Amino acid sequence: MSKDVFDKGFEIRKSVLGAEFVEKSFASADDFNRPLQELVTEYCWGAVWGRDTLDKKTRSMLNLAMLAALNRPHELKMHVKGALRNGVTKDEIREVLLQVVIYAGVPAGVDAFRLAREAMQEVQA
Amino acid sequence: MSKDVFDKGFEIRKSVLGAEFVEKSFASADDFNRPLQELVTEYCWGAVWGRDTLDKKTRSMLNLAMLAALNRPHELKMHVKGALRNGVTKDEIREVLLQVVIYAGVPAGVDAFRLAREAMQEVQA
Amino acid sequence: MSKDVFDKGFEIRKSVLGAEFVEKSFASADDFNRPLQELVTEYCWGAVWGRDTLDKKTRSMLNLAMLAALNRPHELKMHVKGALRNGVTKDEIREVLLQVVIYAGVPAGVDAFRLAREAMQEVQA
Amino acid sequence: MSKDVFDKGFEIRKSVLGAEFVEKSFASADDFNRPLQELVTEYCWGAVWGRDTLDKKTRSMLNLAMLAALNRPHELKMHVKGALRNGVTKDEIREVLLQVVIYAGVPAGVDAFRLAREAMQEVQA
Amino acid sequence: MSKDVFDKGFEIRKSVLGAEFVEKSFASADDFNRPLQELVTEYCWGAVWGRDTLDKKTRSMLNLAMLAALNRPHELKMHVKGALRNGVTKDEIREVLLQVVIYAGVPAGVDAFRLAREAMQEVQA
Amino acid sequence: MSKDVFDKGFEIRKSVLGAEFVEKSFASADDFNRPLQELVTEYCWGAVWGRDTLDKKTRSMLNLAMLAALNRPHELKMHVKGALRNGVTKDEIREVLLQVVIYAGVPAGVDAFRLAREAMQEVQA
Repeated sequence: MSKDVFDKGFEIRKSVLGAEFVEKSFASADDFNRPLQELVTEYCWGAVWGRDTLDKKTRSMLNLAMLAALNRPHELKMHVKGALRNGVTKDEIREVLLQVVIYAGVPAGVDAFRLAREAMQEVQA
Repeated sequence: MSKDVFDKGFEIRKSVLGAEFVEKSFASADDFNRPLQELVTEYCWGAVWGRDTLDKKTRSMLNLAMLAALNRPHELKMHVKGALRNGVTKDEIREVLLQVVIYAGVPAGVDAFRLAREAMQEVQA
Repeated sequence: MSKDVFDKGFEIRKSVLGAEFVEKSFASADDFNRPLQELVTEYCWGAVWGRDTLDKKTRSMLNLAMLAALNRPHELKMHVKGALRNGVTKDEIREVLLQVVIYAGVPAGVDAFRLAREAMQEVQA
Repeated sequence: MSKDVFDKGFEIRKSVLGAEFVEKSFASADDFNRPLQELVTEYCWGAVWGRDTLDKKTRSMLNLAMLAALNRPHELKMHVKGALRNGVTKDEIREVLLQVVIYAGVPAGVDAFRLAREAMQEVQA
Repeated sequence: MSKDVFDKGFEIRKSVLGAEFVEKSFASADDFNRPLQELVTEYCWGAVWGRDTLDKKTRSMLNLAMLAALNRPHELKMHVKGALRNGVTKDEIREVLLQVVIYAGVPAGVDAFRLAREAMQEVQA
Repeated sequence: MSKDVFDKGFEIRKSVLGAEFVEKSFASADDFNRPLQELVTEYCWGAVWGRDTLDKKTRSMLNLAMLAALNRPHELKMHVKGALRNGVTKDEIREVLLQVVIYAGVPAGVDAFRLAREAMQEVQA
């Protein structure tokens, strides 16, 4: 493991998904899923989110589109909340998901709108 | 059909995918695929790409991510060329596809890099 | 928007998914998801379901097969109920889903059978 | 293996995909892929296609929709030819694929139209 | 149907998924889903799981990888429990799922780890 | 980057995919795809393939199943060749792919058998 990349990833992950959530994920990790937490923090959040050229707002929008297309409801809701933290507006989320309707199909789009709405209501509550 | 939305879509589609290609698609259309050409032009390019809030550059990046995740090589290559027309740089395409590696998996990412490179070489030739 | 296509789609959508459900979807729509409701009603239900050549019963069967393959549980349950409204029999639904087992794999088929059974029980209740 | 189910499947498979193609598949089979040929013939073509309730024309249309959604170009082309043998008209194939555009997304639909057209041209040639 | 293959499949299925669960599936089957139960037992569990060359432990690991990639939560949890019955250790399940992270993407991997943990907790309870 | 993990990954990758192929991939890399080569070598081949608990033969079989399910022909062919290098026999490859037929569907299985056969013929040639 590269400690620098991990540390960078840990900070970015906390800033996008919320410090409390990420710290709890590590605190509750056991031998079964600690390697997952470490791998994801270093490679996903450090080695890729930590790169320049694209800002976090753009990366968030890309993720909403991909997670809707890939049919991953848990991750989609988490990244809707992350997108709001990264400055993506509610109107921009709507536009990303309308594009999902076209390219990934109406059912993917309808599911994504319902999940995004749930996520936004959870943020407001 | 809404003629206004179709016409708007026709212009946007030509500006992104190239006028020659789009005009040829319509010129060579027959009873079998003309309804496809019309539906896609109006609905995809007029009713969604024609919306405000997201610029064409952002929409192009979303498409690259989705098409790589959805495993659609023909469309991906066409939209790499469209992304270049919409001002997405080669470096930005690389960053989008590195994010694909993480979220859609290494094989999706490796395929996307190979196809993007082919598309960029075709543009240069 | 084409008002004719939208109106046609609105009627077909109500006849397949139930008037109460569709009217409630529009009544509860806000700035976030109203564009989705409009897009889906016009293009999906007006411009495609509104076409001739295939009857609604056949379109329902195609949807069951695709939604099971695409792994979209919410939409699948809704369209099982729609299929019953469109005259697809319980035996025909079973046959469509057995074909899903073969072409999309056993897990897709097993999930679809469970969801279809739930939908049919909700209709009876 | 059930010889009755296999024999029934062998006949149905030949009637849909063409006797020459199926016989050649068995004649050229070796230890590596003979178990595949046997499994598919019995399980797919005998045990499922051999069932009543849905006619072969309907089964062909279901397959076109699923194969387009599942992104399987080789099988899709083969089943476009099979659909024509089973009495699905060119207009009906178009309608099935327009429904794919809506439910599986524009790239899935565009790919399917291109492949269907190729298959139909190969049949004419 | 081949009674021998069905009977073999019935025994293997019970040994992997638990006798109580499988017997209950058949006892509660009705005209709608009995053909599914029979088809799956004969072809999936008899004709394929019943083959030699790969042991049940290896087949279980293959299934965990495929079910995670195919995004089938219900089946994945059931097969995590089956994998434990077939002698796959908790450490080996972790390794299979880390490989899913790489090849099917981080969201597929994260979902699979969460579901596997739930399944293992249900086994312990 | 962790040089140790990268170096380990580089060795493993060469041993599975062939030294010549991997060295050529790096030699021909440019600014566009060098970050991909580095990420994949470190993250996929070092951080995951480099782990203990599962041997390379088992990892190869998992990959064949996942790549067939994920519909990635290029990667599947490369990993069929890698599987042979890792000691997976032709009979074992057949069994893995028969399991794909059941869980990912007949078209996924048929495509995988065709591609595996091509890969094995290329190895022999």
